[in-house]
Amino acid sequence: MIDTYIKNNKDNFIEDLFDILKIPSVSSDSKSKVYIIETANMLKQKMMDIGLKAVEIMETDGNPVVYGEYILDEKLPTILIYGHYDVQPAQPFNLWDTPPFEPVIKKTDLHPDGAIFGRGTCDNKGQFHMHIKSFEAMLKTGNLKCNVKFIIEGEEEIGSQNLPVFINKYKDKLKNDVVIVSDTNIISNEVPCITTSLRGMAYIEMTLSFSNRDLHSGLYGGIVANPISALSKIVGSLHDENNSITIKDFYKDVVDRSDRLEAEDERVMQDYFENKRKDIGVDSYYNEKDYSISDSFGIRPCLDLNGIYGGHTADGAKTVIPSSATAKISMRLVPNQSKDNIYKITKEHLKSLVPSHLKASFKDHGGGDPYSVSKNNKGYIAAEMAMKESFGRKPLAFNSGASIPIMGVLEKELNSKCILMGFGLDSDCIHAANEHFGLFNYFKGIETICLFHKYFYNLMN
Amino acid sequence: MIDTYIKNNKDNFIEDLFDILKIPSVSSDSKSKVYIIETANMLKQKMMDIGLKAVEIMETDGNPVVYGEYILDEKLPTILIYGHYDVQPAQPFNLWDTPPFEPVIKKTDLHPDGAIFGRGTCDNKGQFHMHIKSFEAMLKTGNLKCNVKFIIEGEEEIGSQNLPVFINKYKDKLKNDVVIVSDTNIISNEVPCITTSLRGMAYIEMTLSFSNRDLHSGLYGGIVANPISALSKIVGSLHDENNSITIKDFYKDVVDRSDRLEAEDERVMQDYFENKRKDIGVDSYYNEKDYSISDSFGIRPCLDLNGIYGGHTADGAKTVIPSSATAKISMRLVPNQSKDNIYKITKEHLKSLVPSHLKASFKDHGGGDPYSVSKNNKGYIAAEMAMKESFGRKPLAFNSGASIPIMGVLEKELNSKCILMGFGLDSDCIHAANEHFGLFNYFKGIETICLFHKYFYNLMN
Repeated sequence: MIDTYIKNNKDNFIEDLFDILKIPSVSSDSKSKVYIIETANMLKQKMMDIGLKAVEIMETDGNPVVYGEYILDEKLPTILIYGHYDVQPAQPFNLWDTPPFEPVIKKTDLHPDGAIFGRGTCDNKGQFHMHIKSFEAMLKTGNLKCNVKFIIEGEEEIGSQNLPVFINKYKDKLKNDVVIVSDTNIISNEVPCITTSLRGMAYIEMTLSFSNRDLHSGLYGGIVANPISALSKIVGSLHDENNSITIKDFYKDVVDRSDRLEAEDERVMQDYFENKRKDIGVDSYYNEKDYSISDSFGIRPCLDLNGIYGGHTADGAKTVIPSSATAKISMRLVPNQSKDNIYKITKEHLKSLVPSHLKASFKDHGGGDPYSVSKNNKGYIAAEMAMKESFGRKPLAFNSGASIPIMGVLEKELNSKCILMGFGLDSDCIHAANEHFGLFNYFKGIETICLFHKYFYNLMN
Repeated sequence: MIDTYIKNNKDNFIEDLFDILKIPSVSSDSKSKVYIIETANMLKQKMMDIGLKAVEIMETDGNPVVYGEYILDEKLPTILIYGHYDVQPAQPFNLWDTPPFEPVIKKTDLHPDGAIFGRGTCDNKGQFHMHIKSFEAMLKTGNLKCNVKFIIEGEEEIGSQNLPVFINKYKDKLKNDVVIVSDTNIISNEVPCITTSLRGMAYIEMTLSFSNRDLHSGLYGGIVANPISALSKIVGSLHDENNSITIKDFYKDVVDRSDRLEAEDERVMQDYFENKRKDIGVDSYYNEKDYSISDSFGIRPCLDLNGIYGGHTADGAKTVIPSSATAKISMRLVPNQSKDNIYKITKEHLKSLVPSHLKASFKDHGGGDPYSVSKNNKGYIAAEMAMKESFGRKPLAFNSGASIPIMGVLEKELNSKCILMGFGLDSDCIHAANEHFGLFNYFKGIETICLFHKYFYNLMN
């Protein structure tokens, strides 16, 4: 029995995941390339060890993709599992209670059974690992009913820039009936959900520069341009007094998708946002005027300053006028906005605001188009049935504010829909210090994924 | 003869200075305290070695002051020499061509005889060292005519916050007829100047915060306040379209001190600012509307953003909404502005701009009141005569944009004026990477200081 196999192998599963978590596979840091390769090699070995076939490390122009498959019968439905083994940077390190790449299990109020703490525990090593272990459990107990294919990539956190070419190149090999992805969250451990839409993203970095070197403010103060001042003026003007984005035509393509929920689900969503709010310790949200929090989050685009720096950023005082200053700006996009168009109009807008005495340069940090899936899709229905059985409650259809840039590419190139059935909690601190993933969530995920395979097989026959 | 002594000891002098330059006595970094102490101990030893008396390390509530004196006769005029052995941080290290605390001599276009490169070479270790070696040369050759007292402090770069109490406490010990300070620059190696005014400074750090931790912009983008956005809006509004400062009453106490120069000096100043401009590689200056560059620099106050940071400041992309963002803001003040009042009105102004959903906190990084000295002062006249003889040209009276916060305190507590006769060049990169100090300047300084002692003695008798 699958349940018994999972129960008997709990410690092995966790130990296996710890191996992967210990490697700092930070894709945005070029110095971490060695860890990227080490992680890919480890995954290849682990996937072969549990019986996956044709396992290989497939090169791209960037970090490699780890592939593995198990084809029972060409006529059976095929489930493609997508995940990513790269992680976000762990800086600032001083905010972590335990080192980010030394996973440990600790209990918390929301995770009385314990949670694994470490970078990548939830996003995404812990979540794709559930699929590997579900496959192992189904195979070992003779319960595998669908063909499976795995692609675990290494550039999701830097925009999956080389994956579109890869998918296009191997579209026959990757042929499938449904793509399943666990890189999203549930409302709570009592209320599951399936993500029916994701926001797209465009990410632009802007640097303003003036002099050929940093200047002493006593020797140049009052007679030179200050890149921090100019940059602040520009990025500070990107929202108006209603917290709407001021970039011309930014909202032009946005589709109105506001959706009425049933009363109980409406209450669930209100509680959800209230808990999110309390969790981050603020008195009130701050969103676009005339929109609900739920809409501002799930169906409205936004623009965020993700980083700014210039001049003296260490402790204490330094009387310097910096030669340059930099801002990192990302925008979350909704249907029907396009990443390329938003990048273009944003760059044009920023350029138009640069004073003539300063030089501006830009970097494109990738992104992707928004994505959505219908509740009538067979993959969605199978996921709904699986979650209803494992959680004892019908999952909500959830408009997420997050982005998984590659979803739209998978849909377009492989002609199949992606089902976003993740098991994290919003309080898991992904992308931040003290990231963690509940043991309840990890094992509930394994259980639910096995049920998904069963129901998807049933629906397709 | 003094000249012969200096000539015969050139290498010894430089070697002696190198010892001091090698210690990273960065006062703004609490981890460097050990180097502060090491530098003070070394200075004490060196001052005793050349024959100064009553040499001691005098404690303050912060870094110690190194004191030494040589009293020929109580009735003779006494010259108090002020300098500082602490230095600015050397970050960012990657901009340095050679390590900041490993001094080397290299030739440059402006320094065909060579310049010493390293943090503190010009500001201020190299410059106070000229006084130590001048004293040595005068004493050893039997030419010392005035009493001397040295105070070399260790907190100038962090605002000399403990020196006022020190000076007040030891005002009898520090009694003098003139204070001489070499912590300023000359126009060029052909055109000397004496600084007749310095700007004051107020330095304020502002941090805006919102959530209790950094947030994933996919999970919170569009519904939370962004401290970078709010901070940018505020600091970006501190200058208006005329590049005037928008803080209410900021200019209220400013005295109009605009001074007509003789035609030749006017041309010298124009060349000076043109060279400064070319040196920093910009096409044009950017100053307050309706003011000349010379006035914007020397007699108008200014406000500079010295640092800003928040969110992801490393390479690449990170989709984070930071919990806080910080800006470092300094203001250069002119007679009759007061540091305390400017700090107060600036903090009030900044506070008034903070949106209600964000929390603001402030730090006072010190500063000081502006300072000026008359051209009729005997110390000024002696300095003018000394420079005229050593450089072969009458020095300009120069309104400097820089600040030496302690000058006003010395004047007030000791009832004597400070003569600002420095020998650096603006191109020496003080406070920045590749700081250096010309060998010509170092030895011209020693020569001039000896002449100053002679002329000051003559004028006082």
